[in-house]
Amino acid sequence: MKKKIKKINAAILVIGNEILSGRTQDKNIAFISNWLNSKCGISVNEARIIPDVEKIIVENILLLSKKFKYVFTTGGIGPTHDDITAKSISKAFKVNYEYHKEAYSILEKYYGKNKFNDGRKKMAKMPKGAKLIYNPSSAAPGFIVKNVLSLPGVPAILNSMIENCKIYLIKGLKVHSKTINLYTVESNISKNLAHIQKKYKKFVDIGSYPFFRLGKIGVAIVSRSTSLIKLKNVHTELIKLAKLKKIVILKL
Amino acid sequence: MKKKIKKINAAILVIGNEILSGRTQDKNIAFISNWLNSKCGISVNEARIIPDVEKIIVENILLLSKKFKYVFTTGGIGPTHDDITAKSISKAFKVNYEYHKEAYSILEKYYGKNKFNDGRKKMAKMPKGAKLIYNPSSAAPGFIVKNVLSLPGVPAILNSMIENCKIYLIKGLKVHSKTINLYTVESNISKNLAHIQKKYKKFVDIGSYPFFRLGKIGVAIVSRSTSLIKLKNVHTELIKLAKLKKIVILKL
Repeated sequence: MKKKIKKINAAILVIGNEILSGRTQDKNIAFISNWLNSKCGISVNEARIIPDVEKIIVENILLLSKKFKYVFTTGGIGPTHDDITAKSISKAFKVNYEYHKEAYSILEKYYGKNKFNDGRKKMAKMPKGAKLIYNPSSAAPGFIVKNVLSLPGVPAILNSMIENCKIYLIKGLKVHSKTINLYTVESNISKNLAHIQKKYKKFVDIGSYPFFRLGKIGVAIVSRSTSLIKLKNVHTELIKLAKLKKIVILKL
Repeated sequence: MKKKIKKINAAILVIGNEILSGRTQDKNIAFISNWLNSKCGISVNEARIIPDVEKIIVENILLLSKKFKYVFTTGGIGPTHDDITAKSISKAFKVNYEYHKEAYSILEKYYGKNKFNDGRKKMAKMPKGAKLIYNPSSAAPGFIVKNVLSLPGVPAILNSMIENCKIYLIKGLKVHSKTINLYTVESNISKNLAHIQKKYKKFVDIGSYPFFRLGKIGVAIVSRSTSLIKLKNVHTELIKLAKLKKIVILKL
């Protein structure tokens, strides 16, 4: 019997003062969201950026883990005093914050017994019962506990680990998307677009995004759907609309 | 009598499927946060990215506007069907969603009577009682209602409008920051950093951020405080620490 594939959602919780203050530009939300959708058929329905404050992390972990199928956290799992993600998640789920045996031996092997200091040992401390998300670039593993997956904040390291999340995730229906770029302004087509959106309300999400390219103004119409057929139907209607309004379609 | 200046906080609510899906990289959070801190002494304490769904926008507006002194929304105030920010904020605050007279005349003048179609007229519809945030680049104004300031999603337009938010904001204490870049790894200094952080707990936030530059690994130590004196003290301790550990300080 074929198992019915469902829509599966997730939230992303970015933990870090440096992102909130604007010092560092977050790149992890877009990366994780793109990966989840294209590789796992999982849609990110909410993202939050919060400071390195235990009480706030605990509150958000509890709330988001109830509300969404998966929660991805980024940041706060390094060796310094402001890395409090693992401890806070332990508190949220009321489990011990303790050395993970395998993580400990991975890190001890990586640094060598003599250089395995307290800061480095801290990276082996996790919520009791956590499973590891292996890190091929700098050894220190991420982890999953309940439905919360914790990854580091440095994009290059996070990117190298993302494939190792896959074994913990149930696949959902992939959301396909199709973009058509029109040399027009939004207000010239907004009425027609609303009409098409209404017609395909249940199946396709249509978004409209102005762009500036080579000194010209245009609108990217992005349609998203789990059905390739409905997506094609919408695309055909959009091409018809462009012809009707004598709008040039930009081919990229 | 000198008025006592307080810490003032804000939240940012990014409204848009295109950001959540990872299609578009958000740049507004970092921009607004930097501007608020450097120009107004206001700290962003939370940021959220949510989809273009009325119910979700309403919930978040109500929650964040209670929790923070100011809420900045980005996105969803254009002419198309997926632009539902103004309508949703009206619903949240239980006020009419109606034409703003001045916004209407600004837009009518900008487009000319003949080209002022329904999509464009929509951009003059706002929550009753809203005040305008003028837009020097593409006319369509943002608005403020209660403590919620709504700006567009296109970064170039948002950036051109940000100074026009100032008249609506109370200034707070500016958070100063000082960065020292060390050629070391976090785990080599984590214990000492934790000690310094503990000592200045009430006054200074110290963050530690690994970087890779010119093939070398380093750590940026960022200290943030409303007190320049405490910040200087921490900086002196960090320089001492570097000397003690024989760490090279990277001058940028």
